[in-house]
Amino acid sequence: MEANKIITLTTDFGLVDPYVSEMKAVILSISPNARIVDITHNISKFNIRMGAFILASALTYFPKGTIHVAVVDPGVGSHRRPLLIETNKGFLIGPDNGLLILAAEKQGIKRVHELTNKKLMLNRVSNTFHGRDIFAPAAAYLLNGVAPLTFGPQTNELNKPVFTKVIKTRKSLFGQVMHVDDFGNIITNIDLDTSYQDLYGKMLKINMSSSKLILKFCKTYSEVQLGELLVTIGSHGFLEISANQNNAGKMLNIQSGDKITVTIPSQTII
Amino acid sequence: MEANKIITLTTDFGLVDPYVSEMKAVILSISPNARIVDITHNISKFNIRMGAFILASALTYFPKGTIHVAVVDPGVGSHRRPLLIETNKGFLIGPDNGLLILAAEKQGIKRVHELTNKKLMLNRVSNTFHGRDIFAPAAAYLLNGVAPLTFGPQTNELNKPVFTKVIKTRKSLFGQVMHVDDFGNIITNIDLDTSYQDLYGKMLKINMSSSKLILKFCKTYSEVQLGELLVTIGSHGFLEISANQNNAGKMLNIQSGDKITVTIPSQTII
Amino acid sequence: MEANKIITLTTDFGLVDPYVSEMKAVILSISPNARIVDITHNISKFNIRMGAFILASALTYFPKGTIHVAVVDPGVGSHRRPLLIETNKGFLIGPDNGLLILAAEKQGIKRVHELTNKKLMLNRVSNTFHGRDIFAPAAAYLLNGVAPLTFGPQTNELNKPVFTKVIKTRKSLFGQVMHVDDFGNIITNIDLDTSYQDLYGKMLKINMSSSKLILKFCKTYSEVQLGELLVTIGSHGFLEISANQNNAGKMLNIQSGDKITVTIPSQTII
Repeated sequence: MEANKIITLTTDFGLVDPYVSEMKAVILSISPNARIVDITHNISKFNIRMGAFILASALTYFPKGTIHVAVVDPGVGSHRRPLLIETNKGFLIGPDNGLLILAAEKQGIKRVHELTNKKLMLNRVSNTFHGRDIFAPAAAYLLNGVAPLTFGPQTNELNKPVFTKVIKTRKSLFGQVMHVDDFGNIITNIDLDTSYQDLYGKMLKINMSSSKLILKFCKTYSEVQLGELLVTIGSHGFLEISANQNNAGKMLNIQSGDKITVTIPSQTII
Repeated sequence: MEANKIITLTTDFGLVDPYVSEMKAVILSISPNARIVDITHNISKFNIRMGAFILASALTYFPKGTIHVAVVDPGVGSHRRPLLIETNKGFLIGPDNGLLILAAEKQGIKRVHELTNKKLMLNRVSNTFHGRDIFAPAAAYLLNGVAPLTFGPQTNELNKPVFTKVIKTRKSLFGQVMHVDDFGNIITNIDLDTSYQDLYGKMLKINMSSSKLILKFCKTYSEVQLGELLVTIGSHGFLEISANQNNAGKMLNIQSGDKITVTIPSQTII
Repeated sequence: MEANKIITLTTDFGLVDPYVSEMKAVILSISPNARIVDITHNISKFNIRMGAFILASALTYFPKGTIHVAVVDPGVGSHRRPLLIETNKGFLIGPDNGLLILAAEKQGIKRVHELTNKKLMLNRVSNTFHGRDIFAPAAAYLLNGVAPLTFGPQTNELNKPVFTKVIKTRKSLFGQVMHVDDFGNIITNIDLDTSYQDLYGKMLKINMSSSKLILKFCKTYSEVQLGELLVTIGSHGFLEISANQNNAGKMLNIQSGDKITVTIPSQTII
C-alpha cells in the first residue's frame, strides 16, 4: 500500500509548548508537501488508554494510506521499542506501549517493524523527545516512499495492555468507560450495531461506579428534558451516557476506566 | 460564484476529543486539496450567540469564495434543518439555529438551501454528529464544484434569534456585550465608524451591569496607566471596554449578553 | 536567501477568539499557497520572555527560508516599531520589544528593517491588532518575493531586554528558569554540550527559589522511581529539572524567571 500525503498527530504534549511545532518542522523539512492533521494534543499526560481510544476513534475517517503518528510515551528513552505498524488501511508510528494497539487491531495488522535505522532519524536523538527525533522523521520518510523494511527488522512481539473485555448477552451488557469527552458524554467500549435500535424508547438500568440509574434509550439528545440524562448510541457506534445540554460526566462523577453494566428489560428481544 | 480552496471550521467541540479531526478527515477524503483553517473550536458549549459573533468577526478577512462550516448544535438530530447559505462573498454551512445569521447578513444573503440530498452525506449519518456526517461532506463536495441546488431545495425561512438592537443618538449609545475575549476585552455590538474618532481623549460615562464608570476614550491601550480601564474602538470596529495589560472582563465581572449604555459628553458634537 | 513556503505563528492570543484565524485569512488572501504552522498561541499574556524562549526553541527545526511571525505585543499602537529581521537562516517579523531577539541571535542577524511601507499593510490598520494588519501581510508579501528593503528602511537599533547571563565554571553552573512546560519540566537557560555527559549518574546540588535539592543527573526519566525528581539535559540541550511522570514545576512551586545554581561534585572533572 502506498502512503497518501496525510500525516496525523496524536500526543499528550498540550498546546502551550513548542513540541508539536517541532514535530511539524521536522516533517516539513523532510517532506515539504505533507498534509499534517492534528487529531489531538490534549491526551491526559501519560494516559495510554485515552490515547489509544481517541486514535482508534478518529482514524476510521481518514483515507487509505494515511500515516498516523502517536506519542504518549512515559517510557521515552528507556527500553520500550519505537514501532512502525503496517495495517490493511495505513500506517501507525509510535512507542510499543499499547498506544497503537486498538487502532492497529481495528484496521488489521499486516506487519510490525522496529525503528532501528539511525539514518532515518534526526542526527542527534535526545533521550526525552522521540516524537521529534524518531517518530516524526519516520513518518516523513515513509511518506516520501522509503519502504517499511528499511526502517528496521520485522518483529512479532507487541505490547498489548488489557483493556476490559465487553460481554453482551440477551439480558445485559458489560463494559468499561473509555473516555469522558469535553461535552461530558460518557463513552463506553460497548459497541452496539443497528440490531439494538429496537431498544429505542425503552428504559435501561445502568450500574456504573456508585450510580444506579434508569435511563431512556434515545435516538437524539432532545428526547429528554433540558439537563436530563439519557443513553444513546454515540457517533462512533458505542453506548454512551449523555445529558441534554448538560455534562453527564460531572453529574455522575465518572472517570475513564470505570466499569458499567446495562440491564436490558426482559420483555425486549433483540 | 466559485469556491476557492479554503474551508473554515467554527465549533464548540474543544481540542481534546477526536471530533474536529474527524471532520477534517472527511473533508480531505472527498477533497484532498482543501485548505482547512480553524477559526475556533472553543466556542462555549451550546453558546449560539458567541459562535455567531466570532464567525461573523473572522469571515471578513477570508478571500471571496471561502466556505465556512460552523457547528454549535444543541438541537442535533431533532427537527432543526441543516443549511447551505450562499452569500455575496462565499458560503455558510451549518444548523438553522441562528449560528450563521450574523455572518450571512454581513455578507448579504443570495440563496438558502436545505441539505437533504443523502448522496452528499456520509453513508451512515449518526444522530449526534452532523458536523462530521452532513456538514463536512457538504463543504468538501461544494469545494469540488457540486452546485448548491444539488444539495437540496431552496428555502426562504431562516431562524433569526433576536440579538439586542443597537441604538445610537447624539447623546448616547446603547447595545449589548457580544463577547469577552481571552484578554478580557469586553466587545460590544456598537459599531463606531471613523466619525467617532473626534471623541478620542474625551471621558465617557459607561453603564454596564452593576458598574457605573467614567473612562477615557483612547486610541491605544498605553494611553492609560498599567492596569487601568479604558474605552476604545476594537480591531473589528466595535466599541470595547479594555484595560492596559489587565483583564477588564474579570475586573468588572461582565458576561456576554450584558447590556451597555454609553453617555457622550454634551459639548461633543459628532 | 529566498523564503520557502512556510510561515510560523507564535502569539499570546489563545485559542478561543477569532484573532489567529484572521491572521491566517490575511496571509492566505495575499499568498494562497503559504503553509502556515502554529508554534503556539498560548504564550502567557504579555510574557515576552516566554515568547522569546519558545520561538527560539522551535525555530531550530524549520527549514532554511522559513518566515516566523511572533506577536506578544503589550505596546501595540504605541511607539514601539514593527520589525522584519533577516537572519542567516530565515526571517523574523514582529514588534521591537525583545520578543524576536533570542531567535535572531541564535540564527545570526543579517539586517533589520522597520516596517513602514503602508502599501504592504492592510488598508485599514487598527490600533490594537498589528498581528493581523501589519505583521501577517508582511509575512505573506515576503513569501511572494517582495524584497525586504521594500518594507521599510534598515535600522541598527534593536531593543534587547536583559535575560540573566549564564555562568559556567568547573564547580558550578548559574542561570535562570526560562519556561516551565506543560509537563512541569523546569527548563533553564543553561546549555550543556556533550562534554557534560560525564556527569550522568552523579548527584548534583541544586539551589533554586527556596528549594535546596540533591538530585541525580539522569539520561532518561525512568532512571528514578515514579514521581521522583531528577536533573537531565532536555530535548533542546538545556539543563532541566524534571520528575518521572510527575509535575516538577508544581512540586517545587517554580516560576519562569527564578534563578538557579547547580553545584558540581568536586571529584568530577569536566
